[in-house]
Amino acid sequence: MIYVAVLGYGTVGSGVVEVIERNRDSINKRVGDEVEVRYVLDLREFPGNPIQDVLVHDFDIIVNDPEVSVVVETMGGLKPAFDFTKRALEAGKSVCTSNKELVAEHGLELMHVAEMHNANYLFEASCGGGIPIIRALNSSLTADEIDEVSGILNGTTNYILTKMARDGSDFDTALKEAQQNGYAERNPEADIEGRDACRKIAILSSIAYGRDVRYQKVYTEGISKITAEDMKYANAMGCSIKLLGQSRIVNGGIYAMVCPTLINVDNPLYSVQGVFNAIFVHGNVLGDAMFYGSGAGSLPTASAVVADVVDCAKHRGDNVMNQWSDEEISLIDIDEVRGRFFVRVAGSLAGELNNVKEVFGDVEPVSIPGTAGEFGFITKEMSEREYKEKAAKLPDIITMIRARV
Amino acid sequence: MIYVAVLGYGTVGSGVVEVIERNRDSINKRVGDEVEVRYVLDLREFPGNPIQDVLVHDFDIIVNDPEVSVVVETMGGLKPAFDFTKRALEAGKSVCTSNKELVAEHGLELMHVAEMHNANYLFEASCGGGIPIIRALNSSLTADEIDEVSGILNGTTNYILTKMARDGSDFDTALKEAQQNGYAERNPEADIEGRDACRKIAILSSIAYGRDVRYQKVYTEGISKITAEDMKYANAMGCSIKLLGQSRIVNGGIYAMVCPTLINVDNPLYSVQGVFNAIFVHGNVLGDAMFYGSGAGSLPTASAVVADVVDCAKHRGDNVMNQWSDEEISLIDIDEVRGRFFVRVAGSLAGELNNVKEVFGDVEPVSIPGTAGEFGFITKEMSEREYKEKAAKLPDIITMIRARV
Repeated sequence: MIYVAVLGYGTVGSGVVEVIERNRDSINKRVGDEVEVRYVLDLREFPGNPIQDVLVHDFDIIVNDPEVSVVVETMGGLKPAFDFTKRALEAGKSVCTSNKELVAEHGLELMHVAEMHNANYLFEASCGGGIPIIRALNSSLTADEIDEVSGILNGTTNYILTKMARDGSDFDTALKEAQQNGYAERNPEADIEGRDACRKIAILSSIAYGRDVRYQKVYTEGISKITAEDMKYANAMGCSIKLLGQSRIVNGGIYAMVCPTLINVDNPLYSVQGVFNAIFVHGNVLGDAMFYGSGAGSLPTASAVVADVVDCAKHRGDNVMNQWSDEEISLIDIDEVRGRFFVRVAGSLAGELNNVKEVFGDVEPVSIPGTAGEFGFITKEMSEREYKEKAAKLPDIITMIRARV
Repeated sequence: MIYVAVLGYGTVGSGVVEVIERNRDSINKRVGDEVEVRYVLDLREFPGNPIQDVLVHDFDIIVNDPEVSVVVETMGGLKPAFDFTKRALEAGKSVCTSNKELVAEHGLELMHVAEMHNANYLFEASCGGGIPIIRALNSSLTADEIDEVSGILNGTTNYILTKMARDGSDFDTALKEAQQNGYAERNPEADIEGRDACRKIAILSSIAYGRDVRYQKVYTEGISKITAEDMKYANAMGCSIKLLGQSRIVNGGIYAMVCPTLINVDNPLYSVQGVFNAIFVHGNVLGDAMFYGSGAGSLPTASAVVADVVDCAKHRGDNVMNQWSDEEISLIDIDEVRGRFFVRVAGSLAGELNNVKEVFGDVEPVSIPGTAGEFGFITKEMSEREYKEKAAKLPDIITMIRARV
């Protein structure tokens, strides 16, 4: 018997209990043993809910029960999740989590603790919800040297951007609708300012490149400044604007950033709509690959957590290594990163275009109906520093969005 | 030291040697040991090629060398691949292969032989080239009950269909171009008649559902009858025509088929272009997921083979189970499969549409410029049997393509 304890009976935690219940037979067959939820830890009571039978309020009961071999941490945040996770691992219990804040902040330390106690700290659900990207990087793409991981890593912002692109609505309206439909939290800042995607790209990059990427050092921009007009320009150019987490090896250096990005139809991420997530990976022999699926939601995320539980159950007493090492990657300064830039500038084609061309060279202006007195253009490839220097010479720039076209 | 022998120095075999050489350091780090190609078996000589140093013409040398622990079979076909694979496994050597014919025909038997000798028979590269779909089904989506696997499983046909859709060219022209560019073989029948995709969907379904799907029982249609006009209709309806391998659980029964299929922009497979492959999976808790990448080619396929080599090297003496059991799935008769049908019919809208509506009910006719004297329509959902019965009443049907819209 594999006894599981679930910490936190929220969206993901309740999903985990439901998945273990619903797919009991196939899960037990895979594990070769019976998997049972022995405890659910939550401060609340759930009167009338059968979960009440296994509900406890004291973590000590779980950590002191030698029969519990797998702990699922779906509390989120750092406190008390870090303390509980560490104590569970020290007691030789494996921990499976969807908590990207904790993994990005203390993942390395917790993996070391797990290793020392022949247990596992697994976090498939921390990036991309149900998409099995962590296990793909750890166990499948093992013949490759990965030189890029990029993706749509946050369902809330992708829902908002999809809404804006489809309906022509502005950011505030789309955010409100996302909140009404349960796709955005009441306090949506971590999502819309890119902080959630930032933690995820740091985790994915650490595993892909086998060295540690500190999320605090990843340049991060959110989507709150994207306007309905930006979307009109994107549509007119056959492009979409996506919040991308990106990291790449360029000339031996690595950069990582999160920012709204203009992409065109040739990019496999182009058609990823709504709350779906997708992660693009480039390997030096594999070439392009992409993994697509539900990036959030109770059951898809629980699917990934429970797959980790199955893995822990199959590898009891046996640490499943991954490539994330202590050596910290010194990321390239954002100013050195090269790319193209979509720029909107105030002024008439007749008047301002010459100024633009003097600064940025020969660019193709784009105009759209309904926005007189301005136009847009995409620069040639240059470094962020070069862009800043040139942009400083054009006082009439309305906005800039990075472009991968 | 992990000594590897490669059987067949063709497109994939030479890629395997190249990948092991090129990514030596990262592969050795993952394995925790050095991986070295000790033998390459081929009937030919390769004068001047460094491979000559390890070239052998006699399989006995390989099977009798106790230091060889992993054999890579990239010969293709059943003979002598089956015999060599079986003997290698019986000698306790693991075998990694890209040979879908052999896996579809004798995979179950060879997995049993592997298990009996504490070795592994792995075939990640047999489906979807570099896309890590087999390992995802075996090791990642373990919390789910999979109820659909569908995909673009053949790069040659997807290249041809993409060409036809983009350029308006007819099938023969597109095939010729594919041959000139090395994307189709001189004898392309296994690809264009769907036999390659048929083997792949049989393998994927067997793993996804945990029971045996015999490829001989999978209804299979190729793309050689698709015309430039069919593509024009598809484009006009905002759809694309793809050769899909599909299998699904419906009301407890399972169907599997390979056929050209009309799909629309909402289908994640819609934008898979050229030689790329993609596999769509639906899990009962995961929901929709898709895996996308290079479906063929020397290095991408070798990437998957070498990932299997890494797995074998990490699990020496330890059989990595999968869910493919001996129990054969009795597939639903194709006549009982339900779907929609795109039909082209000769006749004028004024004359023939009434006949069509009498038979198929209220359908929306589609006309495109340049094809006077005919029109198209998409039926409501019905079984294949119902469709056949109705179609028999309309002598002027030009063609029918299944539609998932």
